[in-house]
Amino acid sequence: MKLPTISDIMAAHGRIKPYIHNTPVLSSQQLNKMFECELYFKCENFQRVGAFKFRGATNAVLQLGEAERKKGVVTHSSGNHAAALALAASMNGVKARIVMPETAPVVKKNAVADYGAEITFCKPTLQAREESTRKIMEETGATLVHPYDNFNVICGQGTAALELLSDKPDLDFVIAPVGGGGLMSGTSTCVKGIDSKIQVIGAEPLNANDAWKSFNSGKLVPSVNPLTVADGLLTSLSELTFRIIQNNVDQILTVSEESIISCMLLVWERMKIIIEPSSATVLAVIKENPGIFRGKKAGLIISGGNVDFRKLPF
Amino acid sequence: MKLPTISDIMAAHGRIKPYIHNTPVLSSQQLNKMFECELYFKCENFQRVGAFKFRGATNAVLQLGEAERKKGVVTHSSGNHAAALALAASMNGVKARIVMPETAPVVKKNAVADYGAEITFCKPTLQAREESTRKIMEETGATLVHPYDNFNVICGQGTAALELLSDKPDLDFVIAPVGGGGLMSGTSTCVKGIDSKIQVIGAEPLNANDAWKSFNSGKLVPSVNPLTVADGLLTSLSELTFRIIQNNVDQILTVSEESIISCMLLVWERMKIIIEPSSATVLAVIKENPGIFRGKKAGLIISGGNVDFRKLPF
Repeated sequence: MKLPTISDIMAAHGRIKPYIHNTPVLSSQQLNKMFECELYFKCENFQRVGAFKFRGATNAVLQLGEAERKKGVVTHSSGNHAAALALAASMNGVKARIVMPETAPVVKKNAVADYGAEITFCKPTLQAREESTRKIMEETGATLVHPYDNFNVICGQGTAALELLSDKPDLDFVIAPVGGGGLMSGTSTCVKGIDSKIQVIGAEPLNANDAWKSFNSGKLVPSVNPLTVADGLLTSLSELTFRIIQNNVDQILTVSEESIISCMLLVWERMKIIIEPSSATVLAVIKENPGIFRGKKAGLIISGGNVDFRKLPF
Repeated sequence: MKLPTISDIMAAHGRIKPYIHNTPVLSSQQLNKMFECELYFKCENFQRVGAFKFRGATNAVLQLGEAERKKGVVTHSSGNHAAALALAASMNGVKARIVMPETAPVVKKNAVADYGAEITFCKPTLQAREESTRKIMEETGATLVHPYDNFNVICGQGTAALELLSDKPDLDFVIAPVGGGGLMSGTSTCVKGIDSKIQVIGAEPLNANDAWKSFNSGKLVPSVNPLTVADGLLTSLSELTFRIIQNNVDQILTVSEESIISCMLLVWERMKIIIEPSSATVLAVIKENPGIFRGKKAGLIISGGNVDFRKLPF
């Protein structure tokens, strides 16, 4: 199993730079005062398609060979990766086919359709997604761009941390959300490759704590029917992302649904930016663990800002 | 009646610069494509207290003499000006007394209290506000800092346009919302003082169209029981702001409630920033008048981002 290195992430950054936004790193004096630490928000909610996923998808599309480009790409995703691959493919003249659960938020379905991808709806189970995807691959020869169990995707996701550390090198912590582990794998590989003294922390909903269980038991434990407001973090780690996380992450901290919702509202109210529930997990880690972060500098990867405004949790 | 000039606004900017944020000017490729023009959003939702009002309030507080500083300031406001004056006063060691209507959004009441001002609640009518304020002035000798009918406040509000034109000098239009006319007076004085070829447009809810009526009839027409989702634009022009607007504004365009709400949602969804309904009027002007703006460059003053998330209009 080939694991990514900091060089792979730097190469990915060089490759995708012309396509992505170098998103801003924001801070809030009010939040710093409230939590008694210095917080630096790497705002991937301002990334194209409203999420970091555009980085990994773009890197994967740019690595296709000529024959692969002609047959197109396919993926299954609950939302942000779907839109990301749809746009990355369309910007590069490649056809994208997307398998989405029927239950995905309307705003995410619309985004995928707007980017011109072909959508196949399926039942909201991992099995149904994987079956639909396999069928499309067999029929069309399309290349699978898995949302996180993919070397090129992981390298792309790591470029957000690369830009964060280029703007703010003197951090004590970097915190990113953990779902399938693609962002966490890229982020931790990047951070440890640049400065091994920076602590890397994964933020996970208590109600979807497969990564916490896997990390602490040393064995890959899949998620069983997770139920969390952080709809981007329902997926389980893969062998690849688990291995990378074991190697590079210092700890995984779980957070309550209540903290996720209150931290999302806090960022909306005080910073006037839209972040999605999955992104609020990183601030929830700060909120639930004041002792760890007091007086320290933490970089927070804000993963995205795609929210269905008609179904808010507050 | 002394009217402000571009020199007064430049002087105000020099004075308040150490206290305010030089807010970013953002743009969105998606919105530019959708409306077929180039839009530059001057984001005063990222200003301290979440609104441009901090500029005018700070300028007014910094102009107090020593005797006035000791007696403090007083104002009546439905929200943003209240928080702005409370913070500006507290940052400068001056006591603030604020008269607020009982019906003001919770988030705005809390903000004022957090900044340490003394709040007096009153009925939600202009008469009740003015009476309470007069009483406080008589009892304490506090200086009234009116939300808009005030030379120093108007000069402060004009500094947002000054920063906008410093970032983007080659605009065809500048659009700002019109309520009591403080922002519009400062903005139009600034823009015409710098480049008289730039068209200055006021954006007003059709349901609170006193400025439109006054501007087009040449006579000051007060608002009677206006009812609009743009809760920052309920107030009527004063003699002072009307005179300045008559001198400097090219036209006032009214917008429907439906446009205000859909444009607010559009900015949240596409730009991932929180803007309040009053701010959405400027984009609603673009939406309702495609013929005027096609192919042009427009600077939009986004007045604020203070929203009660439990009472959203969508």
